[in-house]
Parts: sequence; structure tokens; C-alpha cells
Amino acid sequence: MLNIAVIGAGRIGTVHAAAVAAHPGTRLTWIADPFGDGAARLAAEHGAKSTLAVDEALHAEDVDAVIIGSPTPLHVDHILAAAAAGKKIMCEKPVDLDIARVDACIAQLGDRADRVMIGFNRRFDPGFAEIQARAAAGEIGDLEQVTIISRDPAAPPASYVAQSGGIFRDMTIHDFDMARFLLGDIVEVNAVGQHLDPQIEAAGDFDAAVVTLTAASGAVATIINNRHCPSGYDQRLEVCGSTGMLEAANHRATLVRYSGAEYTEAAAPYLNFFLERYTAAYTTELSAFVTAVEHDTPITPNVHDGRAALAIADAATHSARTGERVRLS
Amino acid sequence: MLNIAVIGAGRIGTVHAAAVAAHPGTRLTWIADPFGDGAARLAAEHGAKSTLAVDEALHAEDVDAVIIGSPTPLHVDHILAAAAAGKKIMCEKPVDLDIARVDACIAQLGDRADRVMIGFNRRFDPGFAEIQARAAAGEIGDLEQVTIISRDPAAPPASYVAQSGGIFRDMTIHDFDMARFLLGDIVEVNAVGQHLDPQIEAAGDFDAAVVTLTAASGAVATIINNRHCPSGYDQRLEVCGSTGMLEAANHRATLVRYSGAEYTEAAAPYLNFFLERYTAAYTTELSAFVTAVEHDTPITPNVHDGRAALAIADAATHSARTGERVRLS
Amino acid sequence: MLNIAVIGAGRIGTVHAAAVAAHPGTRLTWIADPFGDGAARLAAEHGAKSTLAVDEALHAEDVDAVIIGSPTPLHVDHILAAAAAGKKIMCEKPVDLDIARVDACIAQLGDRADRVMIGFNRRFDPGFAEIQARAAAGEIGDLEQVTIISRDPAAPPASYVAQSGGIFRDMTIHDFDMARFLLGDIVEVNAVGQHLDPQIEAAGDFDAAVVTLTAASGAVATIINNRHCPSGYDQRLEVCGSTGMLEAANHRATLVRYSGAEYTEAAAPYLNFFLERYTAAYTTELSAFVTAVEHDTPITPNVHDGRAALAIADAATHSARTGERVRLS
Amino acid sequence: MLNIAVIGAGRIGTVHAAAVAAHPGTRLTWIADPFGDGAARLAAEHGAKSTLAVDEALHAEDVDAVIIGSPTPLHVDHILAAAAAGKKIMCEKPVDLDIARVDACIAQLGDRADRVMIGFNRRFDPGFAEIQARAAAGEIGDLEQVTIISRDPAAPPASYVAQSGGIFRDMTIHDFDMARFLLGDIVEVNAVGQHLDPQIEAAGDFDAAVVTLTAASGAVATIINNRHCPSGYDQRLEVCGSTGMLEAANHRATLVRYSGAEYTEAAAPYLNFFLERYTAAYTTELSAFVTAVEHDTPITPNVHDGRAALAIADAATHSARTGERVRLS
Repeated sequence: MLNIAVIGAGRIGTVHAAAVAAHPGTRLTWIADPFGDGAARLAAEHGAKSTLAVDEALHAEDVDAVIIGSPTPLHVDHILAAAAAGKKIMCEKPVDLDIARVDACIAQLGDRADRVMIGFNRRFDPGFAEIQARAAAGEIGDLEQVTIISRDPAAPPASYVAQSGGIFRDMTIHDFDMARFLLGDIVEVNAVGQHLDPQIEAAGDFDAAVVTLTAASGAVATIINNRHCPSGYDQRLEVCGSTGMLEAANHRATLVRYSGAEYTEAAAPYLNFFLERYTAAYTTELSAFVTAVEHDTPITPNVHDGRAALAIADAATHSARTGERVRLS
Repeated sequence: MLNIAVIGAGRIGTVHAAAVAAHPGTRLTWIADPFGDGAARLAAEHGAKSTLAVDEALHAEDVDAVIIGSPTPLHVDHILAAAAAGKKIMCEKPVDLDIARVDACIAQLGDRADRVMIGFNRRFDPGFAEIQARAAAGEIGDLEQVTIISRDPAAPPASYVAQSGGIFRDMTIHDFDMARFLLGDIVEVNAVGQHLDPQIEAAGDFDAAVVTLTAASGAVATIINNRHCPSGYDQRLEVCGSTGMLEAANHRATLVRYSGAEYTEAAAPYLNFFLERYTAAYTTELSAFVTAVEHDTPITPNVHDGRAALAIADAATHSARTGERVRLS
Repeated sequence: MLNIAVIGAGRIGTVHAAAVAAHPGTRLTWIADPFGDGAARLAAEHGAKSTLAVDEALHAEDVDAVIIGSPTPLHVDHILAAAAAGKKIMCEKPVDLDIARVDACIAQLGDRADRVMIGFNRRFDPGFAEIQARAAAGEIGDLEQVTIISRDPAAPPASYVAQSGGIFRDMTIHDFDMARFLLGDIVEVNAVGQHLDPQIEAAGDFDAAVVTLTAASGAVATIINNRHCPSGYDQRLEVCGSTGMLEAANHRATLVRYSGAEYTEAAAPYLNFFLERYTAAYTTELSAFVTAVEHDTPITPNVHDGRAALAIADAATHSARTGERVRLS
Repeated sequence: MLNIAVIGAGRIGTVHAAAVAAHPGTRLTWIADPFGDGAARLAAEHGAKSTLAVDEALHAEDVDAVIIGSPTPLHVDHILAAAAAGKKIMCEKPVDLDIARVDACIAQLGDRADRVMIGFNRRFDPGFAEIQARAAAGEIGDLEQVTIISRDPAAPPASYVAQSGGIFRDMTIHDFDMARFLLGDIVEVNAVGQHLDPQIEAAGDFDAAVVTLTAASGAVATIINNRHCPSGYDQRLEVCGSTGMLEAANHRATLVRYSGAEYTEAAAPYLNFFLERYTAAYTTELSAFVTAVEHDTPITPNVHDGRAALAIADAATHSARTGERVRLS
């Protein structure tokens, strides 16, 4: 039984706390959040202890592992503090918005960097994981082209956008990791940004984009992003190989279809957002973390994967702004 | 080149005339219809001759074969007259509403009865024909259960219903033939009728029904009929065997799907009715007729098939009225 | 927090124990099973107490409600004993195979019969429940025809079949309840049985069947059953109304589709059987029970519903054996 | 009745000849092809006259309009000769591989350039045309992102590739026209080429590519091309707007699906190539041409559209080779 502290009682911390509480191999012992009464409320819900002092949870004896769901600028500090306290670590993506800080973090972690899990939850979605496994097993031959459609249901507030690091570091970073999950190393990045909503443009960001990534293998991944989608959270994946193709469709709450006089076989809108869409992924992600901790084995995705995705995001940002294609070293 | 006369310039005669005119192996030479100027109009459209005297067309020298699309009560007369004139024959379904008249017709045709084609057009639908062929080739093992969903877009007028012979002889007869096409001889019939529209009930008929047919093989076909369907002409087929299943979906004009805020992947309504839905079937039906005529070989479905479907319709009528299951001899 | 004892540590008892253990509003306190060490093992897994004496659990102070998953012949005894002990009751279907015993049970329960839940789990499947709710809200007009496809992945052993009460009381009873869930009272039953597997025929049972049920409203439900299906547990529902249609498709583990040179858009086989297919249904079923217990309100489906489904099963058994249509009083 | 000469008796000329012969408003009078006996054979099939001298057909009195299906390098000559002879013109794409020649052709045509139809047949595919019409009518709000998947079933021979003008001028040009059909003027082009097949690389061409086109409106179209696809001719379109999405799926010969023990709902491979996939498009394209000729109205797509698509192809070629984004003037 792994005793776990969750750092951050916000939206994602709440998801992790529930997953830990429900998991047969984990016990939720602490919730830490310096702001307001979020930690206390969340802890009460699950019969855990709470604190406003993150350090208290990081050093508690009944904590074996820490799940970091704090604001992005605090991730590196919390990772390093948890590591110093000898705890196992899972941290939400991105590691940081500044690749120099990520590099410093990796340097300080040393050998243990490949034990610090980064929460690219989509790798654990049963459908995407199935596609990756079947493709890796050779079922569709040599991989040639990957298409990732990734649209959020609605744009975040402009205030969020302004400090998000931009669409590529904030939103597309998940898709960059998915491309790496499927195709391995990326060597070239090319991004076209769109300004659809003037408020987001005013906040200095794109709200839609198309990115092409060329892998070392010669395969190309195309990522199509939009900050809004009328039908919900549009999350699709298509992997084309030399002998076949695997694709994953959008999810709805049920498989019910309606037919009437005006249209037929109509399904419900997609599940609204990541909490609903990736419920199963958060559970299997946690299981993967628990297993790796139990055996003290390297874990994937780890801080190195977090760094690689951020490097692509930096390149995409540059490409979209300048129109230049960027080669990654 | 086969010279063809079409008897009857109504809705179905118009379909056949167009198919003959477009077919590379046939020439439309005559249209005969005793009522009004339908024959003249239809003939003008295709550059054929027209007559109000059916006999004139039946005996014309430039007529090798006759397609009979006259009202049902005239079918037998026209079949026998055309046979007497030495012409090849395709006749719309049903042969007649009275099985005694069908038997007399068969007796008079003698050896040639298996050369007189009956227009069960659905056997020639590319999808249904593919299913029959793949099932017959053993692709899904022993056939166990067939489900035929067959719903018209809207009920005909009560006046039509009153002289139609009833839903089983008029509408379900196509499905009875489809069951025989897939399963061969039927030995037991069980029908449940429904009265949904009081006007059709007043006309003495059911307007919906569920019929189960037991084949000599032990397989069971279920037919679900309705005189109306909000989404159009609902024509589906599902054949379950011991090792697999084959199914055919409804057709729309295009494969376009719409997704919006309220629903997703919505298709158009089904094609409205048989002229649109079975366009391809009428063409391949004609080709099958032409080929059989050219080689003077027996043809399927023929008058015997027309009789067999009518016998099932009679049994279903009895079953639905009395609640008794009917064994066919 | 509702303290619950589970009676029976077999396959279905295991499902209920896990659901109770995971439910935020229930506590699993006892597992009782007189045979072997099943109760001890299952209790250990969930930190509950166990006993070989069912009575001990039925009378324990830390038991508010009992979930009965014992063999069918014991259901009535356990229901009555639990009721005598003042416990709330959920019992697996069927109540009993003998309608006289069910009537006696109802008589003895008196006013409380509508508080004893019967485990027709499919009513709680999110897809089927959505269809029922939307249909009941009038979204598709007057209900006209219901089609229930229900095929098991593989037949049970002949030994099970021999004491199962027959396909209609054992398997179709779920579909009878689904028809009642959607259409209300059934007034006429008509069943056609099939003998596909000689071993099951030797055991005195049908292994496939088509049943048509006429509702008091005039709507007809068609149930197509088969004890085996090559593609898994085939569970589909289609409800046609005067203005529209609602349908629920089969479930797979993921929504991944494969396309290759020989075929395209191929999905995985269906989820294999009821434990996988109806996982969500068992959870929502338990929630419905908990809510009804908390408010001491009547619950649906209850023992009266169990009796009604059994009466249809008896009628179907008679109809399939004799070929007679059966009117329910 | 429009009298039509078809220039070129190759694969595409054969398609046009058949469409003309079957069309109720056209008469196929001449086939001209200087090489071998292709013209004679094709003419015999349709009861038309044939000649080895293209000029003879261009100047024949019983020719009102000319459909040019000759090799690409001859297109401009044939367009100008037909125009000089006072004939109406439909010409296969591309106008030419050299934009200077296209400009010269347009200059010489003068006012009549917008009456010379270019055979971008996909605009006339019923599904794509429906999407364009519904999108143009505002059904999905402001257009934001278009995704065009366009994969051929198998690469042409390296000899063809070598003189094809490259993938962008030969294959993608259809997709460039589709993007313009949906989004109007394109202002920026960005192309990433792939070398999958060494033989095609040796021939100096890419055999797969991803192109992003930015429209003047700010919308972005993504084109994903591959010279081969295991499942057939992969032709999909997805248009996302601010309030909804429209998509067109791949076509098969029938809508039959197979389910068995290993996979379920498997469809056939896609229709193999353009002749099968775009049969309906060739017919409606011809109708559009006939209507425009009858009313002497401008037609779309015309030589200006052919030039615009070629300009995008030139830009894509440059972009893929240099890695530079290209702005169109």
C-alpha cells in the first residue's frame, strides 16, 4: 500500500485525490495547498489529513509518494523538494515553461530523473494506448503518417492564456508527447498559428494551429488544434502505416443514436473535457506510477519526456511566429 | 440487342422503361398502356413507339421480350398472352393476389414457368446480393437467424390499402422472398399484426407487423414491418450464422455527417422510397433477365418463387387474424 | 452510510460485493455463503466479516440491507428471512422459477413487496436507461415497435441448462423486463424456439428463440435470442416511435478501428459477457437501491416486476412448445 | 442536344466518352487521338466517328463542344485550337505544368477564359458539393479549419512520376482546388514532403506530403497526401466551423459490414481509384458544363481556377524543397 500526498487542491489535484482514494494499491494520506480551505475540504472528503504548508506533507512519515498538481511555476520547486525528502514523484505537465529551468531540474535530479513521472495522461487512455501497442507490434507496418485532432470545447479566459506560455506549451504539448509516444524522436517542427478570437490574439496567443512534426524515421505527424469546438472535446488519433491504419474515435457518455425526420444516427456531443474524457486514463496512469514505484524501475513518461515535449513546443512557438521551419538538435 | 416492350406506363413502368433505355444490351421499342396518354408520353421520352392496345405491343415483330408493369389483377392475363405470343417475360410482383390463379398460370406455362421472371428487385440490390453470396459461400457458417427490417416512409392511401390484398401480400411479400432467397424453403409462419393508424384499420388491414418464418433448415427469419417510418425507407438486413454476421445498413444520398453543439455525426434521412433506394437493383435485375433470355436458361426469381412468396403471405394473413401458427405443406 | 451483507459468494455475489465496497454510500460488512471458503475469501478481500451461516448475517446488527445472490431456489427463503429480520432487500433475478412460490412470497411480503428490489440490472445500463427516459419524455412520439437483440457469447453447460427453468425463464427474462420497462403491461405472448445445438435440445431446452410481445398500448416488442454469438455478448436495443427512433449499439473495450487491405473500420469483438458489459449498470443499480432505502420509497424493479417477467416467461415457454399464442390476464 | 468531341482515347477520355454517351443532353460525335487505334475502338463502342487528326474533330460541323483529355503538355495547344475553332471547352486538369504557359493561354483566351472549364471533378462529388453548399449557406458558422485526407491506392510508376511535375502539381492540385472551393483565396503555403519509397525519391519526387494553406479569411486547410494507401483510395474531407462540423467518409461498393470472432463491423476496402470513386462526379461535372454552355454563362472551375491551383502547387513545391513558407501575391 503506497501512501500518497497530493500537492494542490485545484481541479487536477481533485482528480488525482479521487483516483488515489479509489485505487486498491494506494492510500491518500495528505492534501497540501497553501491557498484557502481547498486542502481541508478535499482531505475531509477522503478522510485524509490536510495542510497549508506543502513542506509538512513532503516530509510526513506517512507519505511515500507525492503527486504534484500545483501551479506550473511551482512544479520544479516541488519536484526538487520532494526528491530531497526522498519521496517518489508524479508531476503534472508541463515540468516548467522555461526549458532552462527544466534542464536545471534534470541536472539536479541526476540518476533519478527517469523515475519522476510527468502526467501526460493521454498515453494511458485505453484507446490511444491500444493503438500505440498495436502499431509498435507491427500490425500496420512501418508508420508513415499520424494525424492528431485535438480541440478543446471552449477557450480558457484571456487571463489564463496570458500566463499559459502560449498554446504550444500549454495545450499542444500533450499532442507533442503523443507524437513522440507513437513516432519517437522528432527532428523538425513546422507550425502555422491562427487568430480566430480577437481576445486571445490581444492576449498575445494563437487560438488554433496546425503543426507538422517530422520524426527521425521520416514519418510525419500532423496536429490540428483549436481552442474551441462546438461539439465538445474533440480528441481523435489516426495512425497510418504501410500496411494498415488504426484510428480512435471521440467518446460520448453512451452509444445511443437518434434518428428522426430531419437527420439520422445522431450521437450525443463528445464528452465535454479532459476530466470526463480521460477518466480511465487517470486511473491507469496512477497504476503505472504505483507499479514503477514498487519495483523502483524507470518510468515513462518522465522528466526527460517532459523536456522533449517542451523543446518541441518552443520550436513550434518560434515557427508559428517567424514562419521558419525549426530543426531540433 | 434485345427489343423490349414495357406494359404499363405508371410509376414502375417508368422505372423499367428508363432502365431498358439506358441498358447497353436492350432497346426500348414499345410502351403499351390502355389508359390516357401515359404510353405516348413515356415513349416520346425514350424514342419508342406507343399503343393503347397491349396486344399490339405483345405481338409486335420488334419485340423480343415484355416487361409487365400493369395493375396486379392483369398480371396473369398479360403473362399468358405474352407467352402465347412467344415473348420472353419479366413481370412485376405479385403474380396475383389469388394463389389459385397463380397455380392456373403456372399450369398453363408448363415448362416455361421457370423462364418467367418475377420482379423481386431486392434480390438484385448490390448489398443484399453480396450478403446472400457471402453467406451461401459459407463465410458465416450455418445460417441461424435472419432479421429483416422493412419500413415504408409513409402509408399508401386507404383506398389503395383496401384493394392491396393486405400488408402481407402487398408489402411483406418482398421480405418473404428475401427470406427464401437467404434461407430456402419456409415451413412455418407466425404473424403478429398491429393497428397503429385507425384509417388503415378501417380499411381492414394491419399497418405494422412482425412475422417469424421457420426455414426447413431450422433457421428463423424475423420480419419487422411498418407502413411508416419517420426517417424514410428503412431497409435493413442482418444475417447471423454460427461463425459470423453480415449486415446491410440504410442508404442516404451522400455519406456526409454533421456535428454541432446539440448532436454529432448526424446523417441525412434514408433515401425516401424504392425508386431511389433500389435504383441499382433495377439495373442489375434487368441485366440478369437479359442474360437468362440470351442463353434461354431458367431464371430466378421466377413464377414459382412468386407463388411461394404468396403462399407465405396467405399463411401470414391467416396467422395474424387468428393467432394460429401455420405450417406450410 | 448503509451497512450491507451480501448473501452468496459466487460470480454475482462477487460483483455486488465489489460494487458495495466501492460505493461512497455503502459499507460492506458481511459476506455469507454456506459452501466452502468463498465467503471468507471474498470478505478478506474487502475487509468484511464472513460466515457460513446465512442467518448470522441476516440478523447482524451492523447490517441494514441484504443483497441476495444465492442460488435461485433459495431466493424466496432468503427474501422472507431478511424481511423477517427487518432488513432492506435487493435480490437477483429471477425471484423463483415457480410462479406459485413467487405469489406466495408476495403475499407474505404484503405492503413491503414494492420495497424489495429485483436485480434486473439492464434497466440501469446508461444507454438503455437513456433510451427509456428519452422515449418516456416523448422524444420519439408514440412507441410502436421495440427490437431487442440479446445473444450470449456461448451457451452454458448442458447441466446448467437442465436446471435453469429453460431459456425463457433463465435468459429471456431480462429481455421481458426490458420490454416492460419500455412498453409497460404485456397482454399477448408469442414465441418461436429453435434447436441449434443438439446437446441443448437433449437437455430439453431451446437455444435460440424469437418472441413477440404485444403491449396493452398496441406496441409490439420483438426479442431475438441466441445462446451463442461469435462476436461476443450481443446486446442491442432499438425503439421506434411515430416520430423517431432511438438505438443502442454494442460495446467494445475501446473505440479503436482498424483498416487494412482486406477490410476497413473493423472494431474489436463486443465485450464478452454481462460482468464486462454491464459494469456501469451494477453501480447505478446499487445507487438506486441506496436512494430508495434511504427514503423508504417503493423501488423499481421490485418483486411485482419479477413476477410479471416470470409470467411472460411461462407464457413464452408454453407458446414455443405448443405453437399457441398466449394471452396474459 | 450538345454535340461533343472527346480528344484523347486514354483512361480519362474513356470516362468522358461514356459520360457523354449516357447523358440525355449530349451526343458523342467524335473521338480524336493521334496514337494507335484507341479513337477507333472507343468511337465504335459508342457509335461515334473517329480520327487520328485532332484538328479534324476540332473543326467538324457536328461538334459544338470539346472535352480535352489529351496528355498534359498538349492541353494548352488543344484549348487554343478549339477556342479558335469556336468550340466550347472542357479540359482535364492541370492546364499545364508551367504557369507561364497557363498565363499565356489565359491572355490569349481573353474574355472567354472564364468559359473554359477545367476538370476538377471533385467539386462535383455529391458529398463534397453538399458540404461546400451547406458550409457556404452558413450551417456551421465561420469556417475555421479544413482537413483534406487524400491518398492514392498505389504509386504510379517511377517513369510517370519523373514527368508528372511532382506530387504537388500532379496529385495535390486536386486538393488545392478543393481548399479554394471551400475557403476561397489562399495567401500562404507551407509544405512538408516525405520520402517513403526510395524509387520515387530516385525519380526526384516526394511520395507523401502534408500541406497547410492559409486562406485570406484566416482559415487554414490541411492536406495530407500519400501516394499509397493499403485500404484503397482514401478521400475524406472535414470542414470545421465556429458552430459545427461537416465531414465526408470514404466510399465502398456496398454498405455491408461483417462481424466475426476476431473483429466486428468490418467494411470493405474503399473504392479503388478515381474512376470508381468519382463516377457520379463525372456525370454532374458534365451536366454543369452543358448547362453553362447552353446559357453561355461563366463556369466554375475555369482556367483561372486552374491557374490558381497551379500557383499553389508551385509554392508548395518550393516550400517542401526549401523549408520556407511561401506567401502568394
